[in-house]
Amino acid sequence: MPISSLSPPRSGLVLVKNPHLDLMEEDILYHLDLGTKTHNLPAMFGDIKFVCVGGSPNRMRAFAQFMHRELGLAGDGEDVADICAGSDRYAMYRAGPVLSISHGMGIPSISIMLHELIKLLHHAKCRDVTIIRIGTSGGLGIKAGSVVITDTAVDSSFQPRFEQVVLGDVVVRSTELDKDLAEELLACSREIPDFPTLIGHTMCTYDFYEGQGRLDGALCSFSSEKKLEYLRRAYDAGVRNIEMESTAFAALCGLCGLKAAVVCVTLLDRLEGDQIRASHEVLWEYQQRPQRLIAALIRKRLGLGPALLPAD
Amino acid sequence: MPISSLSPPRSGLVLVKNPHLDLMEEDILYHLDLGTKTHNLPAMFGDIKFVCVGGSPNRMRAFAQFMHRELGLAGDGEDVADICAGSDRYAMYRAGPVLSISHGMGIPSISIMLHELIKLLHHAKCRDVTIIRIGTSGGLGIKAGSVVITDTAVDSSFQPRFEQVVLGDVVVRSTELDKDLAEELLACSREIPDFPTLIGHTMCTYDFYEGQGRLDGALCSFSSEKKLEYLRRAYDAGVRNIEMESTAFAALCGLCGLKAAVVCVTLLDRLEGDQIRASHEVLWEYQQRPQRLIAALIRKRLGLGPALLPAD
Repeated sequence: MPISSLSPPRSGLVLVKNPHLDLMEEDILYHLDLGTKTHNLPAMFGDIKFVCVGGSPNRMRAFAQFMHRELGLAGDGEDVADICAGSDRYAMYRAGPVLSISHGMGIPSISIMLHELIKLLHHAKCRDVTIIRIGTSGGLGIKAGSVVITDTAVDSSFQPRFEQVVLGDVVVRSTELDKDLAEELLACSREIPDFPTLIGHTMCTYDFYEGQGRLDGALCSFSSEKKLEYLRRAYDAGVRNIEMESTAFAALCGLCGLKAAVVCVTLLDRLEGDQIRASHEVLWEYQQRPQRLIAALIRKRLGLGPALLPAD
Repeated sequence: MPISSLSPPRSGLVLVKNPHLDLMEEDILYHLDLGTKTHNLPAMFGDIKFVCVGGSPNRMRAFAQFMHRELGLAGDGEDVADICAGSDRYAMYRAGPVLSISHGMGIPSISIMLHELIKLLHHAKCRDVTIIRIGTSGGLGIKAGSVVITDTAVDSSFQPRFEQVVLGDVVVRSTELDKDLAEELLACSREIPDFPTLIGHTMCTYDFYEGQGRLDGALCSFSSEKKLEYLRRAYDAGVRNIEMESTAFAALCGLCGLKAAVVCVTLLDRLEGDQIRASHEVLWEYQQRPQRLIAALIRKRLGLGPALLPAD
């Protein structure tokens, strides 16, 4: 039963590629604290059209509150409830047709969340779902605060692939993202002149320090010159930012027929340093930039016109 | 500048193996929201002797509260403060000489925390620190609720190694843990007769579903027979439980001269199933078992006699 990458199904439904699921009487989505017998998933989630995921639970709550206002929903949205409150592994909020979920840091953490989210969308019979990761990243040769829309997620050898271990063997998967969605996002960015947005490759690593060539970890065995040589090779290969989830995100969403994008703000230029030195206030404003871009896309898709409010 | 595995230094200090650190005027421990200029790290942490780490922030808060009572500290310990409250990436609490920190799920997430924790212990000039991961895991051929003390952390090919990518190249590291500490923990377990504790290998994977041979993820390309064949091979290689952090934890702590142990409770027997079906109450009691074992060790080390109270 090999798993191949396919075009999204015409039904618009999410593709779970697991013949065993149909044989299960109950499916407990353990890390989300949800399940098919304990929750009415179609009633709770059947109308979801946009799923936004990001590392930090606080940021994803702020995004749900922001979307609540952007969509003109009743109430001020400040008391948005954590749907996964019974688990402290992830946080999940909704605002109208938008689901906002935290995924923690790194490929293993996002991978657990995505397996359970994809099953949730399947059980809820959601259709035509767009999924976007809104994250933070280190930039390469671009100004801090720039927003990068990923065209291709690449690994630490700058290759567009994700290596998944299955029963001890390595399976190589494509990390293609939806090209039309990336272009649509770029078009939306032209309506937001107060920060630069660009399309580029995103490099995904398994850690923040040695894996990203930082000189400031507890361990460092290389020189500043070797670091810069590696980062310049990444730049020459088209990499414009570095984070820790995009290859697994692209591979899993692609295999399950979800139209997916990755939009990350850069917190610093890694060609200039390693430590994140900007103030909390500056970093908080940076983190709102991908949120504002995604809000513009969602408002456009829903026919609500351009966004007017800055996030807060 | 190759990094080699060494015995702990006689000074008892933590070994950071990074010549660049001495040249930095300030070290911002970004994900912990601490820093050498903003915080007096020796005053805050210089007397720490035990560091306990685990995935869930709620569980690590509960552990700090439990240790507060076990150490007979003043007050009820219920209002223990999150030292990393300015960041939602990790949570950190202290009870006397015990630091309790969450690390999220998976190798990348624990790796970021450990780099910053090890630098923190270095900046604070801590001596003779023992570090223990207290986690949850899937068991192999043992009763749910059993506690496994890891003798060797192995990868998905059952090898005692951790592959770290440095500037795009793979570096292989040892995953040895402290044998004396494992034996000391086993001796402590004999004083706690109400759950089984054993020593065994722990397999560390990069995800929870396909990487651990689960049949219940969004993707599954293998049969139940192939899954069981893989898990039985793991059992025959000495693996008694499966989790997602131990190889990186063992490698990083070993290189930095920290005496380290991994103690995980098993939430189910993977030879019998994939889904975690126990009630919240049962799971909560299971999660207290490694905490009770570690409390017994710490009380013994501090000359406080055997633990009397069950955790709550």
